[in-house]
Amino acid sequence: KNYKITLLSGDGIGPEIMQVAVSVLQAIAPKFNLTFAFEAALAGGSAFDATGHPLPAETLALCQSSDAVLLAAVGGEKWDTLPSHLRPEQALLGLRAGLGLFANLRPAKILPQLIDASTLKREVIEGVDILVVRELTGGIYFGLPKGIFTDENGVRRGVNTMAYTEPEVDRIGRVAFESARKRQSTLCSVDKANVLDVSQLWRERITKLGAEYPDVKLSHMYVDNAAMQLLRYPKQFDVIVTGNLFGDILSDAAAMLTGSIGMLPSASLGEPGKPGVFEPVHGSAPDIAGKDLANPLAQVLSAAMMLRYGLNESAAADYIEQAVTKVLDSGKRTGDIMASGCEQLGCKAMGEALLAA
Amino acid sequence: KNYKITLLSGDGIGPEIMQVAVSVLQAIAPKFNLTFAFEAALAGGSAFDATGHPLPAETLALCQSSDAVLLAAVGGEKWDTLPSHLRPEQALLGLRAGLGLFANLRPAKILPQLIDASTLKREVIEGVDILVVRELTGGIYFGLPKGIFTDENGVRRGVNTMAYTEPEVDRIGRVAFESARKRQSTLCSVDKANVLDVSQLWRERITKLGAEYPDVKLSHMYVDNAAMQLLRYPKQFDVIVTGNLFGDILSDAAAMLTGSIGMLPSASLGEPGKPGVFEPVHGSAPDIAGKDLANPLAQVLSAAMMLRYGLNESAAADYIEQAVTKVLDSGKRTGDIMASGCEQLGCKAMGEALLAA
Ligand SMILES: CC(C)[C@H](C(=O)O)[C@@H](O)C(=O)O
Ligand SMILES: CC(C)[C@H](C(=O)O)[C@@H](O)C(=O)O
Repeated sequence: KNYKITLLSGDGIGPEIMQVAVSVLQAIAPKFNLTFAFEAALAGGSAFDATGHPLPAETLALCQSSDAVLLAAVGGEKWDTLPSHLRPEQALLGLRAGLGLFANLRPAKILPQLIDASTLKREVIEGVDILVVRELTGGIYFGLPKGIFTDENGVRRGVNTMAYTEPEVDRIGRVAFESARKRQSTLCSVDKANVLDVSQLWRERITKLGAEYPDVKLSHMYVDNAAMQLLRYPKQFDVIVTGNLFGDILSDAAAMLTGSIGMLPSASLGEPGKPGVFEPVHGSAPDIAGKDLANPLAQVLSAAMMLRYGLNESAAADYIEQAVTKVLDSGKRTGDIMASGCEQLGCKAMGEALLAA
Repeated sequence: KNYKITLLSGDGIGPEIMQVAVSVLQAIAPKFNLTFAFEAALAGGSAFDATGHPLPAETLALCQSSDAVLLAAVGGEKWDTLPSHLRPEQALLGLRAGLGLFANLRPAKILPQLIDASTLKREVIEGVDILVVRELTGGIYFGLPKGIFTDENGVRRGVNTMAYTEPEVDRIGRVAFESARKRQSTLCSVDKANVLDVSQLWRERITKLGAEYPDVKLSHMYVDNAAMQLLRYPKQFDVIVTGNLFGDILSDAAAMLTGSIGMLPSASLGEPGKPGVFEPVHGSAPDIAGKDLANPLAQVLSAAMMLRYGLNESAAADYIEQAVTKVLDSGKRTGDIMASGCEQLGCKAMGEALLAA
């Protein structure tokens, strides 16, 4: 099988960690009878510097015509003073809209080797394995009207609209129920139905959908309580499904439970058969860019997610994930996850350790 | 001084914990030359049962004509199937709107006696002392348009509007800057300005206001990052100011950091001279209602907040807070905060211990 993969290295540590992920993909390809045609394109701050836009039209077109997109990270202080429609983050929003990536899967799994990296007590986080399914192309991120409006008295008012239609809720709901089926068959839908109309519709549709998935244990939770419960007793969660904004907040909280966001991949999926985007949860870390200090493992695990969810090559995905486990078991660590008794490696050396494993 | 206090005991454990708070207020009154005229009114599920509405007009009128409102907790499964405009929570939203309570102060302070109750490691939470200043009468809670609308194809769409005007931001901003001045003079404003127009206006106004408070160290943080940072390194925060929805989520997360939400009070304030509402952060805990098991300390500390922020009687507030400290120091605990080596008390006995202290 031959796959066309668009590589968006982005900014900061992006290029270094991307290089490791690509070398890993190349190394495992023959084993699984795969070939990859990689094509690099510009996105984020570096794209703005080169073309005046964070997501050039050619980049989006290339992504649309590929089988999957592997993205590293975008952003950096350098571009923070740009008007918001030109900032690096717009590349993410543009990709989500342009590729119809309505489903964002963010696993937050405690790796036994890194359990001490968490700020939570061992007994609280041991065994935590949460998948946040976040709606990614609707809600307040894209709702209209939006803007800053001036009333007759010259007073300005900032406005955004949080909205979901029934089909939008059903679509992400199905992804969540199907995901739960492949895991512990437990789904918690998070909303703010005690205050928001949009959440009432959300809850009604998810409940209705639940009838089609009687094998999945469905519960509902308010978003404020969910933020508490993630801290209080995170083991209660298997799959969480929620809207764009709540998912942004809760998936970051869930990620931080692990204490090692340098380890966490994510997948953003559209309609079946369309290309997804696979990227680490962490940012572009401009402070350590180019210093061979970055942790490439989230990028490598994002490549594994690409194989599993984007290309349906789960054997190859398993193989990469096992290599990561092996390297961690052998005590090799980058600086961000370093612990006493372990061996500290740079980004490149970590890549070599992965290839050896 | 004579103060007219409206008591809203609400539902569940409300009456038991309110009784303790009232007895404490009565006990300290002579010491500070205060007299309290308490008047009880219905709110929440019990008000619905008695009058058909969770916030009867007489209750709101009584609150409006008093010097302060002491509220316990509302809600319970019994009323969960009511249409949303009749549910107990509407009493809270109605009080906030009816009394113009635009500023919600939620302290989350680690008490050294209870540090082990936290799910976070001791070294991470030791000394944490955060005040969340949440805007309470604007944002997506009250923004229009809202509702569930059906389009020409019969597809329904749930809609809420997140909006802030300049004066709304300035008003809560001032409360936050003033609060920071009385503490560590460090203020973190939380928004989602990389995506939301309403947050861009928010950030612009808070920044502008910052020029009037050059002694306060102001920073800005995105809400997803704030949810992470509360877990990663909570000691970095002094005062957090944010909108209604983000404040709902983050103040609950901050509260849960302490591990003992049975200890946390809150204050909701309107314009100076108007009555505020003072209530615990915890809920009505219907499962333990009437069993003399509830922890009355958050209610008692809410009475202290009432004295401090609502009635400007800080000496009396200090006195109550010291009594709580003494009782904890002596090893007395209710069930929710019980630890080995401590003495477990019921709600009433805890009240008596407070009176003795
Ligand atoms: C950078 C920002 C626009 C983005 C979001 O809010 O979705 C990020 O926080 C994320 O979660 O991918
Ligand atoms: C009960 C609910 C309406 C309320 C809110 O969302 O404001 C509660 O969560 C709170 O924080 O006081």
